[in-house]
Amino acid sequence: MIKALLSVLLVVMAVASSLGKPDKAIPKRGKRIPQTLSRGWGDQLIWAQTYEEALFWARSKNKPLMVIFHLEDCPHSAAMKKVVSEDKEIQRILDEDFVVLNLVYETTDKHLSPDGQYVPRIIFVDPSMTVRADITGRYSNRMYAYEPTDVKLLLANMEKAKKLLKTEL
Amino acid sequence: MIKALLSVLLVVMAVASSLGKPDKAIPKRGKRIPQTLSRGWGDQLIWAQTYEEALFWARSKNKPLMVIFHLEDCPHSAAMKKVVSEDKEIQRILDEDFVVLNLVYETTDKHLSPDGQYVPRIIFVDPSMTVRADITGRYSNRMYAYEPTDVKLLLANMEKAKKLLKTEL
Repeated sequence: MIKALLSVLLVVMAVASSLGKPDKAIPKRGKRIPQTLSRGWGDQLIWAQTYEEALFWARSKNKPLMVIFHLEDCPHSAAMKKVVSEDKEIQRILDEDFVVLNLVYETTDKHLSPDGQYVPRIIFVDPSMTVRADITGRYSNRMYAYEPTDVKLLLANMEKAKKLLKTEL
Repeated sequence: MIKALLSVLLVVMAVASSLGKPDKAIPKRGKRIPQTLSRGWGDQLIWAQTYEEALFWARSKNKPLMVIFHLEDCPHSAAMKKVVSEDKEIQRILDEDFVVLNLVYETTDKHLSPDGQYVPRIIFVDPSMTVRADITGRYSNRMYAYEPTDVKLLLANMEKAKKLLKTEL
């Protein structure tokens, strides 16, 4: 019922907005949905775009950084994405205590792939810019991989990352 | 009139969609609009997220890359953004012939700032991964800056960038 109502409203809105706006360029293959920086991992979080940006924020806000490596067409990534984006506790902590970055493309920084490049992979970085290679998941062959059943471990690891390394900068 | 209709519809939609969806985490300061990768420079374009990703696409698609450096709270950036996003010809060419990247944070690659870091700044990169430092704007002190009145020059420069460097890779 609500879905049907929504569909009708969406059509009305599309027509109304196309009447109100100036003529814009539309790609040959039809209109696209604008890509979001969240890529579905939490639309309400403020995402860094690049690793450089994320490190800058981590340092200046003195907050740990959580980097999620994933791929749009990977079912394991999609399963983790669903769990992370729908877990209110995770989202709240990420919003309040972390700088967040999700990447579908590897960086040139090898510290972000301590045991290789695979997805999904979650790496924590201390505001001192030290990659927390000690904060690992459950799997010895892919130490930074998480599955949906590992959500409690992920939460525990987030708490670990919040205990900042004492460095003398 | 259309605006008023839209506002009403948006409220109805927001209520309807909050009824239909599971309870999601909402930040303390209220709901945010998800950030887009386009950041307003063309919602219908497919944007690379990072410079590494953009270079990969440029090489594999054999298309030139256009990198826009800008800042959200810079009026000169905002003025260029308006012109670029509303120019159908620019949007069409960018969609069909270019890989596009917009950044609000500098990369560590110094080749992207041949005469310093400032915004707005537009740098073209050949698919051979060579920064086209020869493709410049109108200003000798900020060679890669453009103003809204330079839109014809920007189009000419895009055409220049489309003539790929002949390199033997």
